[in-house]
Amino acid sequence: MKIAIMGYGTIGSGVMEVLKTNGGVIASRVGEPIEVKKVLDLRDFEGDPVQPLVVHDYMDIVNDDEIVMVVETMGGVEPAYTFVKAMLEKGKAVTTSNKALVADKGAELLRIAAECGTNFMFEASVGGGIPIIRTILACLTGDVIEEITGIVNGTTNYMMTKMMREGSDFDAVLKEAQANGYAEKDPTADIEGLDACRKIAILTSIVAGAQVDYEDIPTEGISKITQTDILYANKMHRMIKLLADSKAVGDTYSCRVAPFLVAQEHPLYAVNDVFNAVFVKGNMLGESMYYGSGAGSLPTASAVVGDLVRMAKHLDRVIPIEWREEKVVLADEKEQRYAHFIRSTADKKAIETAFAQVDFIDAGVEGEIGFVTPVMSEREFDKCAASLGEGAVVGHIRIA
Amino acid sequence: MKIAIMGYGTIGSGVMEVLKTNGGVIASRVGEPIEVKKVLDLRDFEGDPVQPLVVHDYMDIVNDDEIVMVVETMGGVEPAYTFVKAMLEKGKAVTTSNKALVADKGAELLRIAAECGTNFMFEASVGGGIPIIRTILACLTGDVIEEITGIVNGTTNYMMTKMMREGSDFDAVLKEAQANGYAEKDPTADIEGLDACRKIAILTSIVAGAQVDYEDIPTEGISKITQTDILYANKMHRMIKLLADSKAVGDTYSCRVAPFLVAQEHPLYAVNDVFNAVFVKGNMLGESMYYGSGAGSLPTASAVVGDLVRMAKHLDRVIPIEWREEKVVLADEKEQRYAHFIRSTADKKAIETAFAQVDFIDAGVEGEIGFVTPVMSEREFDKCAASLGEGAVVGHIRIA
Repeated sequence: MKIAIMGYGTIGSGVMEVLKTNGGVIASRVGEPIEVKKVLDLRDFEGDPVQPLVVHDYMDIVNDDEIVMVVETMGGVEPAYTFVKAMLEKGKAVTTSNKALVADKGAELLRIAAECGTNFMFEASVGGGIPIIRTILACLTGDVIEEITGIVNGTTNYMMTKMMREGSDFDAVLKEAQANGYAEKDPTADIEGLDACRKIAILTSIVAGAQVDYEDIPTEGISKITQTDILYANKMHRMIKLLADSKAVGDTYSCRVAPFLVAQEHPLYAVNDVFNAVFVKGNMLGESMYYGSGAGSLPTASAVVGDLVRMAKHLDRVIPIEWREEKVVLADEKEQRYAHFIRSTADKKAIETAFAQVDFIDAGVEGEIGFVTPVMSEREFDKCAASLGEGAVVGHIRIA
Repeated sequence: MKIAIMGYGTIGSGVMEVLKTNGGVIASRVGEPIEVKKVLDLRDFEGDPVQPLVVHDYMDIVNDDEIVMVVETMGGVEPAYTFVKAMLEKGKAVTTSNKALVADKGAELLRIAAECGTNFMFEASVGGGIPIIRTILACLTGDVIEEITGIVNGTTNYMMTKMMREGSDFDAVLKEAQANGYAEKDPTADIEGLDACRKIAILTSIVAGAQVDYEDIPTEGISKITQTDILYANKMHRMIKLLADSKAVGDTYSCRVAPFLVAQEHPLYAVNDVFNAVFVKGNMLGESMYYGSGAGSLPTASAVVGDLVRMAKHLDRVIPIEWREEKVVLADEKEQRYAHFIRSTADKKAIETAFAQVDFIDAGVEGEIGFVTPVMSEREFDKCAASLGEGAVVGHIRIA
């Protein structure tokens, strides 16, 4: 069975390695060997074993009738979208690790795949090697999913773990993460939560069966977290984690990406370093969690190959995935209810006037007061915080 | 779509509840409603809403051509085996939560199902609501599974958590667990590890694609764990957990069920109370873990219903599961290598003579010495321990 890989970077080359290393068992699972016939990339890879397979024009793959499945590991919406669409329209099955593409065009590409009698899969787009998409779509089918909360970005989890363990500064940790390849040169998508936002949009879409636009999800990154916040977090025996959260509210969903203070008892508390985990609550199942390597070449490639095996066994059969293009109107984010940890330059009396009952946290920091509010809506919180006066809130992290 | 439930106990009635509570979404996933037409039980359930559905003879279900799927939640090998076989031979799809049946007859029932053009599924037989079977069979298909280590028995995990947290005595915790329904009247299968042993035999069988007999797996329960052991465990910052362990060794597998001292860094360390978790290491995926409610009516029933949904969508199509009846000869258990924690009445010199280099652990216990051996084979360990003299080892827990 012949396939092509589009984009021979970290994940694309990982797919090649998985297919080589585990070729024997994969062939026995599929019923025949999977062979990479063409690799699309801008580069030539001169001297590399992959060189003879390299093509520069995606039409070379589109028009190759021997190629029945295609891996897309280029990243970004374009030209990935154009290429994937062309492959599907030729009846080729496609699997992708590209969360930007899936968040933006997932519903449309699923429709096109079904219309063309083929499959479009995207297990590797969320949570690296964690099979969270298939778990939601094919395993937890007796349940109504009430909540999904994920640590779905390895870079920020690595950084937060470092900051918590070593008390180091954000900028120092970022530089180190960039130096050892855990953060990109332009780290914005990771540290500002944009990557996590696309991933929770994808997960919420497959739970809802309809399109959740990532632009609608309030998103905050970790770039404002300071060493002082860490001091307080340690005092509270909590970890600061960038969480991507989605809760069922009536007929719709309420989503947020932000740093949260996570208690020791929570299953996500112990998810450290570059590991990812997704916590899922079902109305019958109760609490469950899926944990694994969220990034890295081989774990993500392993998820891509898992899709290849499944697609290979269903070459003439569409596996239906419900994700309609119709848009889900999310619940009012101002109605979300959390307790909030605040650091403020206001005095105790002003704080108690603003928030009524609070728990003060003494972390020995001069010139400010740390406290935890009761659980309240974002709307109430905004009002109370504003009443402290402009500039009086110098730190703010929600409590999970 | 009409189904029957055989055995209307905790899980059987849970299946009814899941189908009722989530009937709408399940119908939309399947394409039509799933209706329970008959319930097989010895009891009559007089006055209960289920009463009109109750039958006492399984042939009433076998001969009802309207019934296309059957849930088996009776437990035990017989008469469950006879009943399930009869259902499969009539082309009815069967899902079971019965680990005794699956461990013993899984391979044979899968063959019969395939021969009769129907499906036999058993997601609920391991790990309650955790979709670990499907994850291994249908998700991690790009990987060679190198290790599975599970906390797969809720009763013992609840008891060990209690003992660790409260320093309470084994017998006291067992009585309490029995009083609140977490342990059965005859708790042998749980506390002696027999339940966990069947579950790791099932998981190893589906990884191997062939029959692993649970009788071949060295199995030890938690009944010998004392308050003194807990003292030492706390001193070492480790939790004592009953682990069911399976590792690939060459062409075969090496398995063991026993209490282990688990380090804080291990993902299984934080799995407490009645929760279950299965740690899986793949050669490409790396470390992953699947966590959830391991017992209880609704989580387990949720897994049964997940199977029903899948079977309902494949009524005319066998989903192949490789689990041949041919027996896997397991690796020599005496070659397994661990570090061991020992409590001994021998003196330090004798201990150092026996084990060469050890780490002594001072937990302030009079009349004995606690120590940790280097990593060594079971065979070496037996020899060293014997050289301490008969009766000199008063406590022994392996280190994970």
